[in-house]
Amino acid sequence: MNIFQPSDPNYESRIRISFDKQEVMKIIGAKLVKVIPGEVHIEFSFMESLTQQHGYIHAGIITSVVDSACGYAAYTLMPAESEVLTIEYKVNFMSPAKGNRFKGIGRVLRPGRNITVCSGDVIAVDKGKEKIVATMLATMICAGKQ
Amino acid sequence: MNIFQPSDPNYESRIRISFDKQEVMKIIGAKLVKVIPGEVHIEFSFMESLTQQHGYIHAGIITSVVDSACGYAAYTLMPAESEVLTIEYKVNFMSPAKGNRFKGIGRVLRPGRNITVCSGDVIAVDKGKEKIVATMLATMICAGKQ
Amino acid sequence: MNIFQPSDPNYESRIRISFDKQEVMKIIGAKLVKVIPGEVHIEFSFMESLTQQHGYIHAGIITSVVDSACGYAAYTLMPAESEVLTIEYKVNFMSPAKGNRFKGIGRVLRPGRNITVCSGDVIAVDKGKEKIVATMLATMICAGKQ
Amino acid sequence: MNIFQPSDPNYESRIRISFDKQEVMKIIGAKLVKVIPGEVHIEFSFMESLTQQHGYIHAGIITSVVDSACGYAAYTLMPAESEVLTIEYKVNFMSPAKGNRFKGIGRVLRPGRNITVCSGDVIAVDKGKEKIVATMLATMICAGKQ
Repeated sequence: MNIFQPSDPNYESRIRISFDKQEVMKIIGAKLVKVIPGEVHIEFSFMESLTQQHGYIHAGIITSVVDSACGYAAYTLMPAESEVLTIEYKVNFMSPAKGNRFKGIGRVLRPGRNITVCSGDVIAVDKGKEKIVATMLATMICAGKQ
Repeated sequence: MNIFQPSDPNYESRIRISFDKQEVMKIIGAKLVKVIPGEVHIEFSFMESLTQQHGYIHAGIITSVVDSACGYAAYTLMPAESEVLTIEYKVNFMSPAKGNRFKGIGRVLRPGRNITVCSGDVIAVDKGKEKIVATMLATMICAGKQ
Repeated sequence: MNIFQPSDPNYESRIRISFDKQEVMKIIGAKLVKVIPGEVHIEFSFMESLTQQHGYIHAGIITSVVDSACGYAAYTLMPAESEVLTIEYKVNFMSPAKGNRFKGIGRVLRPGRNITVCSGDVIAVDKGKEKIVATMLATMICAGKQ
Repeated sequence: MNIFQPSDPNYESRIRISFDKQEVMKIIGAKLVKVIPGEVHIEFSFMESLTQQHGYIHAGIITSVVDSACGYAAYTLMPAESEVLTIEYKVNFMSPAKGNRFKGIGRVLRPGRNITVCSGDVIAVDKGKEKIVATMLATMICAGKQ
């Protein structure tokens, strides 16, 4: 586990303000539950409106949540006057996204002034048992204030 | 461009029925606009409820649509009694998802009895001009009836 | 197909000099056969020394060649005083790398001052017939002179 | 850390025999240094013949070693009469592959009868200090005896 030192002491409020602007998190019902240097957790509950054809959460919704978690994990370590953008990601889906609650966890693997590499997981909680449903490897970029 | 011969002559109705079960497509406002062997187009319009912090469509929503397009492109070539599942995908985001309309196009690159490889693009239409905003490379699997 | 205008008129000689420094291309026996704006082709022949356990070319060697092709495709459009580095790539292996000759083709999908997105293919020539064995989606970065 | 129980008690000798058939590992000078259920380590030393244009190990060689480590990690858990094939992988390059020795580590994230998901790292040892140079997320498939 890496220990990171954020350059911006107000990283948490900066991220909470940005998260609140992500309108899509509202239709997912996602909440920002943990923001520490280099790591962010976002959780949401099962809703039928988020499902694919088999009644599980759609891969793209799983991806939305873990992308935001990874992006904000990277953003904890970026300067106050910056923006974070996703360059690209890869996601492996390891089990059906079946459960009543889902936790998206994003972590910085390697921070950089320009490029930050993150990994993320989505864990389903189904009848009290936890299972990894997806894992992400992502590349984020630090952009100037937009 | 590959020419594909579907084994199931009713592939289109099979896909339309499955697409209609993807509840998440309703909150995105996505429509299935084209279903031909090895290629599927899904379109949606800008809605503020789908945005990230800069007011553009969230990467995960872009991904949801092109994942469904790629999955159904693969599914056109799968047998009648089968299901399609996403194993994994990678997406590169090439421009901000800015526009009033978005087209997700999924195409089969290499079909297989078990594994099908697809590529996809999302094109934004902004004031009448088209621009690629994201490209996907995805691996789909053919599973038995669930 | 995109048409690109390189900023450095001497892009080809710049790339040929760089390619000649890639010592690994010598043990692969790879040759730079085409360098045009936004597109590079590198070819090599089957050698037993490049194989995996089933006697086909190892995935990593296929990757080496298409990574160099994509990197140099990006580099055609970068300024004279720059270096190209691979940030990340994804490769799908679509058929066994079986053949007597292999062509790695890298193409720029979306150029940028900082980040360039490329796609690549490796085609095997087996008894005169061509077959795609792998496809790459890659992110390259333009770095200052090292 | 997952604990895995291999179905084939002779998994180690099966992997050592397969590894010895990977001719490409000889030109890389790579050795299989650890084979335990769900995890394989492969090491090699710097050689000028493996370099790219800046004198570091080429990304494709880094990839070759971690691909073999991931593939064999998956193969530890596959049945005696099977073969492992790489479907796809993604690799992020986090620092230049600079060092005198390199360790490729492959680990199973999620085993399956058909599909196994692995993650891998390559660590450079440079003047006694270790640094991660690349991380892989890969999808392997279990095929019948070829």
